[in-house]
Amino acid sequence: MSAFKSYNEPVIGIVGGMGPQAGVMLCNQIVSCTDAYLDQQHLPVILMSFPERIADRTAFLEGYVKTNPAYQIVKVIQQLERAGASIVGMACNTSHAGPILDVILEELDVRGSNVKLLNMPAETCHYLSYNHPEIKRVGLMATNGTYRSGVYETLLRKNGYVVVQPDLSFQEEVIHRMIYDPIIGIKANPDNSAERVKHLTEKALCFFRNNDAQAIILGCTELSLVLTDSEAEGMVIVDSTKALAKALVNEATYARNIRKKLLI
Amino acid sequence: MSAFKSYNEPVIGIVGGMGPQAGVMLCNQIVSCTDAYLDQQHLPVILMSFPERIADRTAFLEGYVKTNPAYQIVKVIQQLERAGASIVGMACNTSHAGPILDVILEELDVRGSNVKLLNMPAETCHYLSYNHPEIKRVGLMATNGTYRSGVYETLLRKNGYVVVQPDLSFQEEVIHRMIYDPIIGIKANPDNSAERVKHLTEKALCFFRNNDAQAIILGCTELSLVLTDSEAEGMVIVDSTKALAKALVNEATYARNIRKKLLI
Repeated sequence: MSAFKSYNEPVIGIVGGMGPQAGVMLCNQIVSCTDAYLDQQHLPVILMSFPERIADRTAFLEGYVKTNPAYQIVKVIQQLERAGASIVGMACNTSHAGPILDVILEELDVRGSNVKLLNMPAETCHYLSYNHPEIKRVGLMATNGTYRSGVYETLLRKNGYVVVQPDLSFQEEVIHRMIYDPIIGIKANPDNSAERVKHLTEKALCFFRNNDAQAIILGCTELSLVLTDSEAEGMVIVDSTKALAKALVNEATYARNIRKKLLI
Repeated sequence: MSAFKSYNEPVIGIVGGMGPQAGVMLCNQIVSCTDAYLDQQHLPVILMSFPERIADRTAFLEGYVKTNPAYQIVKVIQQLERAGASIVGMACNTSHAGPILDVILEELDVRGSNVKLLNMPAETCHYLSYNHPEIKRVGLMATNGTYRSGVYETLLRKNGYVVVQPDLSFQEEVIHRMIYDPIIGIKANPDNSAERVKHLTEKALCFFRNNDAQAIILGCTELSLVLTDSEAEGMVIVDSTKALAKALVNEATYARNIRKKLLI
């Protein structure tokens, strides 16, 4: 039972820990996206970051880990719900791949969860089409898990985009390495990764530019740490963390306004 | 009842929302301070950010608001505890002023709470003496609430420091304004405050330098957004957010190691 039953504010819940920095960045973007000049005008947010409990999403999708991380993710979502969250986002693109997301949705349904779970890749595509309607050729930078699952590819194609993606060896040696390399990768160096993976970032940008991409979707939350500008070499950078943050803020603000109206 | 009873990991709980950016920054510093290269090696953290529920701490200390924010802070701590947190930090220096903290500690005691609540100003002083034993003259930048409460002043004097603080009019017109000004202040512009309050920051640094401060304690979490370097004009900058993050990480790591040993 929540101690705050009397508050009529919809609470945003964040499944963090995938990785930990990504969850924090999503919270940060929620604060940035909110139109407020007093603390008290900001939206209520609960972040639950249990990195040890949730198996690596890409390792599962690639068959190195047997346990589907979906089951632990569902437990976190339920714990968020018990703590009062009603609108939930998962700060990890790879967890939106079919073999993980389908199990999450099914389990939430079976357990009678009432949370509204937003979909990060879907919100990112929506953000792209809404803010850059002129763009048709879109590159994707993501983990091997998201790359192989085709979650963004399918979604983008359905929406009429031409998807620019490297072949598997470039994907593994350049893009996946940017995120996962145990020495220079972003997960190993959340603080100072930009310099360490600079040569890989340049290689990746060069590939997308040479293949006439007009935009690049950062389809892994970790990449937002190294590609922070809204443009790179003439290509629009679409940050999935920012897109999900905006959607969560819109959803919570809408729900808050509805409740306020009903109370009047 | 927690859904994660089988996990023997001590969970860090953060009382956020005071302001929202400060809570997020504390989480960020916890990730940065943790020695890890895989997601799964990071510490479990729950952030609860309910900005609307908690009255402004300085407004209460200055008599503009009657309700002591301590009662809502205690509710958040209890909700963190119910969600599994055992080591708690409040991402707000002003909430450590006597009239607020004393009520929090009393209420937690009455309600039988078992959380270990770390003390931000105490951890900051500890961080200063441990990392810079040569320093004797320390400046303080804080909100009016923290300034008037004397929480840092008392603590620093007890530990043999000479405290450098401006008079009340400089405090109000320069330092408090950096944080609270509704147009240019940090709370109103968490994203791009550095440029907006630049002239006030320069005035403040000039005051402390002219008064021979060897270090400046950022005794308000918001100030970490504009004074990000570890030194400014030859003075050591001691960030209270970083100090608390390090203490929380040490405490959680220690507790985790103890539990692991007991399990063996």
